[in-house]
Amino acid sequence: MMKERIGVILSGCGVYDGSEIQETVLTLFFLARQGVEIRCFAPNVDQHHVINHLTGEEMGPARNVLVESARLVRGQISDLATAQVEELEAVIFPGGFGAAKNLSSFAFEGANAKVHPEVARIIREMRAAEKPMGFLCIAPAVCACVLGDLGVEVTIGRDAETAAAINATGAVHVDRAVEDLHVDTARRIASAPAYMYDATLPEVAAGIERVVKQVVAWARGEA
Amino acid sequence: MMKERIGVILSGCGVYDGSEIQETVLTLFFLARQGVEIRCFAPNVDQHHVINHLTGEEMGPARNVLVESARLVRGQISDLATAQVEELEAVIFPGGFGAAKNLSSFAFEGANAKVHPEVARIIREMRAAEKPMGFLCIAPAVCACVLGDLGVEVTIGRDAETAAAINATGAVHVDRAVEDLHVDTARRIASAPAYMYDATLPEVAAGIERVVKQVVAWARGEA
Repeated sequence: MMKERIGVILSGCGVYDGSEIQETVLTLFFLARQGVEIRCFAPNVDQHHVINHLTGEEMGPARNVLVESARLVRGQISDLATAQVEELEAVIFPGGFGAAKNLSSFAFEGANAKVHPEVARIIREMRAAEKPMGFLCIAPAVCACVLGDLGVEVTIGRDAETAAAINATGAVHVDRAVEDLHVDTARRIASAPAYMYDATLPEVAAGIERVVKQVVAWARGEA
Repeated sequence: MMKERIGVILSGCGVYDGSEIQETVLTLFFLARQGVEIRCFAPNVDQHHVINHLTGEEMGPARNVLVESARLVRGQISDLATAQVEELEAVIFPGGFGAAKNLSSFAFEGANAKVHPEVARIIREMRAAEKPMGFLCIAPAVCACVLGDLGVEVTIGRDAETAAAINATGAVHVDRAVEDLHVDTARRIASAPAYMYDATLPEVAAGIERVVKQVVAWARGEA
């Protein structure tokens, strides 16, 4: 029997300027335990900026989102422009500021954010095909920027300003605890706040595992 | 009751020039599930080189081991020079080429490798204090370079050349499957081959979890 092909969309390598590393690895780990085939993608574009994760300050020179994302997955990654919805049963977006700085400009422009065209394409095409998607941490904001007009329901944690920006897209913010998830059954979108909370790694892992299980269950037609 | 303080020694951020990211996050995850206090350290030194993980080719400019390691742990890391054995009940070294390129020169000089002085210090002082240590993937080679004269027993997977280099230090290579570990009871050293095998993430995780549990059990006086 063919394994379900689950896309994981990355945005760099590091919480402050790319994909949150711990969220990404746990997503890969829980997906692998489900026995699915994982296909990783990232846009081939320079990062918005590079942050020194020791000091929190900006540093140079520029880094490329696809090249840095490759670190997370031992080189097994492709340009997001090559991702075909027909070859994926579901996609999951881990969090990290890269979702709000590289995949979109949500960190700077909130509900008026621009979304990278390949990111917007994959989210729109997955929705049009009624295929399931998962969004972690700040990544639900990217979903809201693309599908807000559908009134999609997503988590973001308990940051009032960020929740307001989500709602301003037309999407509906849903308050959930760190170990919990929200399931938008109509649009087949699962989301969890993860490190939007100042939480422990096992707490973050609990929410991520629930999203992974929900998305894979949808992809298998079990939910 | 005071939590056991477990040091995790990092070597950068990415399998080909630093710490293996997936091994590191799983080590942190399994340690956190044990309820211990995690303290991360890395030497404040430039990486041997920077590898583009998409192409496998060398790239510039230089990156700093401590600064890049900070990405793995959301900035919660200290210079290894500040690590005090009296403040740690155990230490664990994840793998990745950084162990053999930045923490030591094992990748280039085998049994004749130089070891970063702060790395050698922490390993020697932990052993002298009879405190437990864990080594994953290629990191047992660093242990062998420092403690080979004691005949320490460590895993390395099934690469004959690497195993021979381990044995040439005076250490004893022990053949173990990816999900398994080796326990050197006399020296309180646990090791597992992890991604020295071309294995799946759950297989790698199984070996890492065993090493973490063994090291924490020693730290608690339960083993």
